Amino acid sequence: MTKFSVLILGSASAAPTLTRNQTAQLINIDEQYYLMDCGEGTQLRLREHKIKIQRINHIFISHLHGDHYLGLIGLIQTMHLLGRTSELTIYCPSNIQEIVEVNLRVSESHLKYPIVYKSVNPKKSELVYENDKLEVISIPLKHRIACSGYLFKEKPKPRRINPKAINAHNIPKYQINKIKLGGDYTAENGEFINNRRLTLDGLPSFSYAFCSDTKYFESIIPIIKDVDLLYHEATFTEEHADRASKTYHSTAKQAAKIAKKSNAKQLIIGHFSNRYPDLNVLLRESKTVFEKTKIAEEGKFFDVTFSK
Amino acid sequence: MTKFSVLILGSASAAPTLTRNQTAQLINIDEQYYLMDCGEGTQLRLREHKIKIQRINHIFISHLHGDHYLGLIGLIQTMHLLGRTSELTIYCPSNIQEIVEVNLRVSESHLKYPIVYKSVNPKKSELVYENDKLEVISIPLKHRIACSGYLFKEKPKPRRINPKAINAHNIPKYQINKIKLGGDYTAENGEFINNRRLTLDGLPSFSYAFCSDTKYFESIIPIIKDVDLLYHEATFTEEHADRASKTYHSTAKQAAKIAKKSNAKQLIIGHFSNRYPDLNVLLRESKTVFEKTKIAEEGKFFDVTFSK
Repeated sequence: MTKFSVLILGSASAAPTLTRNQTAQLINIDEQYYLMDCGEGTQLRLREHKIKIQRINHIFISHLHGDHYLGLIGLIQTMHLLGRTSELTIYCPSNIQEIVEVNLRVSESHLKYPIVYKSVNPKKSELVYENDKLEVISIPLKHRIACSGYLFKEKPKPRRINPKAINAHNIPKYQINKIKLGGDYTAENGEFINNRRLTLDGLPSFSYAFCSDTKYFESIIPIIKDVDLLYHEATFTEEHADRASKTYHSTAKQAAKIAKKSNAKQLIIGHFSNRYPDLNVLLRESKTVFEKTKIAEEGKFFDVTFSK
Repeated sequence: MTKFSVLILGSASAAPTLTRNQTAQLINIDEQYYLMDCGEGTQLRLREHKIKIQRINHIFISHLHGDHYLGLIGLIQTMHLLGRTSELTIYCPSNIQEIVEVNLRVSESHLKYPIVYKSVNPKKSELVYENDKLEVISIPLKHRIACSGYLFKEKPKPRRINPKAINAHNIPKYQINKIKLGGDYTAENGEFINNRRLTLDGLPSFSYAFCSDTKYFESIIPIIKDVDLLYHEATFTEEHADRASKTYHSTAKQAAKIAKKSNAKQLIIGHFSNRYPDLNVLLRESKTVFEKTKIAEEGKFFDVTFSK
């Protein structure tokens, strides 16, 4: 079974508090690490969770408000201090390269590893990264400045050998690889056996969508349709819906509506205003619309494959 | 008695660890707060210690290595979020203004308070700040990039009324203020009484010197001569003296030598390489040369007036 999980490193909006850190999440897909946002202090959160930072090769920044990127320079420099040589790619809908480079210049830091900057179009959903198993697609959000969410989507997995059918048809061992790759089989007696009769459906593919920061914005629904796990910001409750709208943030109820309309399997909410010492008010509000809501608090770990 | 103290917020060099934060210190002189350096996470350290951040009006940055300034932008933004309107002055021997402004620009932050940038000459000791009670003088250090320490020096305090002498000479009350301001007194019988006979010495004035990061550098001795409390970096022990020299840092013994030669009353050492889980090795080494050494660990509080 694929490993596909999300570790919450920060859930605070705006200023950090003694109990809540600024936004950062570690996505682990079969031991490939992807960092989502990087608020101040993220390198320490990673250390607390004993995450090997050199295994992070891709960092996705949603937008250039301080609470989502101010930990990036420190992380980049610590990677360097610890001897990194492998490439790091940073995805961002704004010019993060300028920020990184001015900091490296003033400190006269000469990194021993290359950084690749991938500019994300904040107006258009597009494929920003892919490997043989995964696609990452940007999600244009509606915030005060250019801001993109990201959809992590496993590609369809190959069909698997059906041992029972292989035995029943006495398929010779040397043919197995061909069948694994999708080939049909013709027996010595001339019988044609279609690949689908010898194989089972591939394992399910999973998806995770990160949507922060944004006001209620239905345009994201087609992009995240049927997602297994949706993270949607819920900075406020409905009581402060006006403030949410003015600051381009969402309420817990709005997050739940997006989850419902996009047919998400599960919703996690985060990016909480520090006016809510008890996060259950946000949780309860979300659950009135979408029952399968959870709180994306510090240190919580979500298994994306849980839904199937 | 004047209050003059130093609170250590961080003692780590380079990368932060789970037990040691990056350099930052809060200097409190009669409830005026001065922040010395601002490593990543400093705003949280201030919060932990219940320091009212809006009372910080002056931030002194020694140099632009990440472990000494990466918490600055977050602190500036949190001051803004919490409604600051009063001026903030930042002192730095390099162009910190460029760093601050590029971050404010990308986040489209429009601060409601002014920031004044004071450029410190890294080659020359000079007065960088003064008020009626205090002078702050820069200390050119020897590091890989432009780097200045800072000497906080109380101005001489005014002489105090000597109640016994005032009584003995039957000085009328209306003359007291004049005498306080340094005036002499001529009695009705024509007797001239010099001010010094009617007053006592002023209270002692204290001084604190912050010297980090630097290799062993005797040129600082005349500047910090007779200082009450000296903070000097001690990144390494003598065992790693070569590495100290190559990286423009000091050993504990070198810090102690500077303390001794400058006739400091007390020494605190900090900016420890994380290769020393037990800081006592650094403390012991320093004490072989300068007995009155202490470790500048997180949360430790040093009373500068202790020496007199």
